[in-house]
Amino acid sequence: MCGGEQGCIETVKAALQGGVACIQLRAPGWKKRRLLELANALLALTRPAKVPFLLDDEVDVALACGADGVHVGQRDLPVQTVRDLMGPGALIGLSASNSAQIQQADVAAADYLGVGPVFATQTKTDAAPVLSPEGLATLKALTEKPIVAIGGINHANIGVVAATGVSAAAVVSAICGQPNPLASTQQLAAAWQAGVK
Amino acid sequence: MCGGEQGCIETVKAALQGGVACIQLRAPGWKKRRLLELANALLALTRPAKVPFLLDDEVDVALACGADGVHVGQRDLPVQTVRDLMGPGALIGLSASNSAQIQQADVAAADYLGVGPVFATQTKTDAAPVLSPEGLATLKALTEKPIVAIGGINHANIGVVAATGVSAAAVVSAICGQPNPLASTQQLAAAWQAGVK
Repeated sequence: MCGGEQGCIETVKAALQGGVACIQLRAPGWKKRRLLELANALLALTRPAKVPFLLDDEVDVALACGADGVHVGQRDLPVQTVRDLMGPGALIGLSASNSAQIQQADVAAADYLGVGPVFATQTKTDAAPVLSPEGLATLKALTEKPIVAIGGINHANIGVVAATGVSAAAVVSAICGQPNPLASTQQLAAAWQAGVK
Repeated sequence: MCGGEQGCIETVKAALQGGVACIQLRAPGWKKRRLLELANALLALTRPAKVPFLLDDEVDVALACGADGVHVGQRDLPVQTVRDLMGPGALIGLSASNSAQIQQADVAAADYLGVGPVFATQTKTDAAPVLSPEGLATLKALTEKPIVAIGGINHANIGVVAATGVSAAAVVSAICGQPNPLASTQQLAAAWQAGVK
């Protein structure tokens, strides 16, 4: 959605300038060497900005480039396995879409839970049913882990997400698919702050 | 081609009984958790047989299950990176299809080269041009590394491959796609032995 390697680099530059707190590289279907080369390029941007850089799914690529962490889904490597491979200092996230997934044992080894989709999304074709902000709040109440809300979040609805008390919101198209990623990031950040109770 | 998890397990049992010297698990597109579970099941068969078990591409899955090694292609993680992640005792193979790939620096960290396709194959849709046994012999002369020939090898042509002096032949459909994988393996082994000069 960013437009290949150079588009990713430009988007990450703009997002960092706009104040994002974390960058995740997700490119399912890419070969690992291409992913590693882009990961190295993005780390050169996130390190000076002191913003954590995570790989989606690919623990080997994360180890190879020295990424700060990995985000995994329910069908990826188990969180405890990722923890064993990445070490205690790594930032490890797990996607969870319902109460059973939030209460499973594997959650213990995760640093945060990615919970969604909060709203309808076109980015992920295999996404779970839409939660709504009320469903998100219900799931949040089931765990002490920090929650990163995801799925269909944009400048118009991020304030409602912030008001649920979750720790953060993750977006793809609301930054990566925008003509001005810096302005979009700043708009999201302002709307988030305005929504925090 | 083996027919899912249970088919893979049955095929590996038969292939081990038939005398294969190495097993590689290749399932592009599978999620990592499914791959890890099958890898663990196959390791329970290969360990007692003292036959090395390799993963294709997925270094993180190999580390997670304690596989004996990894086989990578030209667009996967670089061999030296795989070596750094897997350690000095791991068995690491690299696919190479032409003289430039065989003579590149990355080869130094590999234990063997997978060279092919020797013959036309339907298994891999993105395979390089067919080498022929003569082309295989020409490439073999360029390196001291052991060569594992691959691509379109079956019981009718494996003797010609053996006669080139390569160290081994790798097959997929000649065992995995056969009604009797044990008999097919034994037939391949006999034809290989008959072809060795």
